[in-house]
Amino acid sequence: MSKRSDTYKVAVIEDLDKRQIIATATLVVELKFIRGCAKCGHIEDVVVDSTYRGLRLGLRVIEALMAAAQELGCYKVILDCSEDNVPFYEKCGLTRKEVQMVKYL
Amino acid sequence: MSKRSDTYKVAVIEDLDKRQIIATATLVVELKFIRGCAKCGHIEDVVVDSTYRGLRLGLRVIEALMAAAQELGCYKVILDCSEDNVPFYEKCGLTRKEVQMVKYL
Repeated sequence: MSKRSDTYKVAVIEDLDKRQIIATATLVVELKFIRGCAKCGHIEDVVVDSTYRGLRLGLRVIEALMAAAQELGCYKVILDCSEDNVPFYEKCGLTRKEVQMVKYL
Repeated sequence: MSKRSDTYKVAVIEDLDKRQIIATATLVVELKFIRGCAKCGHIEDVVVDSTYRGLRLGLRVIEALMAAAQELGCYKVILDCSEDNVPFYEKCGLTRKEVQMVKYL
């Protein structure tokens, strides 16, 4: 992944005293074949350490990745989440759009 | 994209008489940072020419990309779709899971 810095941006927040990562999320940049290789960002794997909840760390990593997506020239960012987390992501400026389907292989 | 054949697989169905692509979909392979770089497939941009609907071409491209995802070692494939298309993707073996959120930049 480190060889693909134009594809993956991993945001982390560290507790410097404990030398421990307490929040993270990843931006994956997809090139859209049907849109002349326009860039679409996907935010994946948003995780905040449960003992650090309520400190707006989730918002911070999302904001950092939105800024990175904009800098990289993404025209949109999409993110899949549970129904329970929709209000949180709405506060982060995202809007409900479609349905995520899955198949485990 | 052609340089990243381990990341992008584009399935196309062509009408050989008309020399025209009539169905396509793309598999994007994401490496999951929090899962030791395990591979997660994303199926994007499923399009079937409107004059060729009802011929199960959508199912064919999905099946081809699911097989490619399995061959590449993906542990799951996800796909975002509109509420109206959920029944179609259920026939393709996918299950409704989460909500897709979006932000246009």
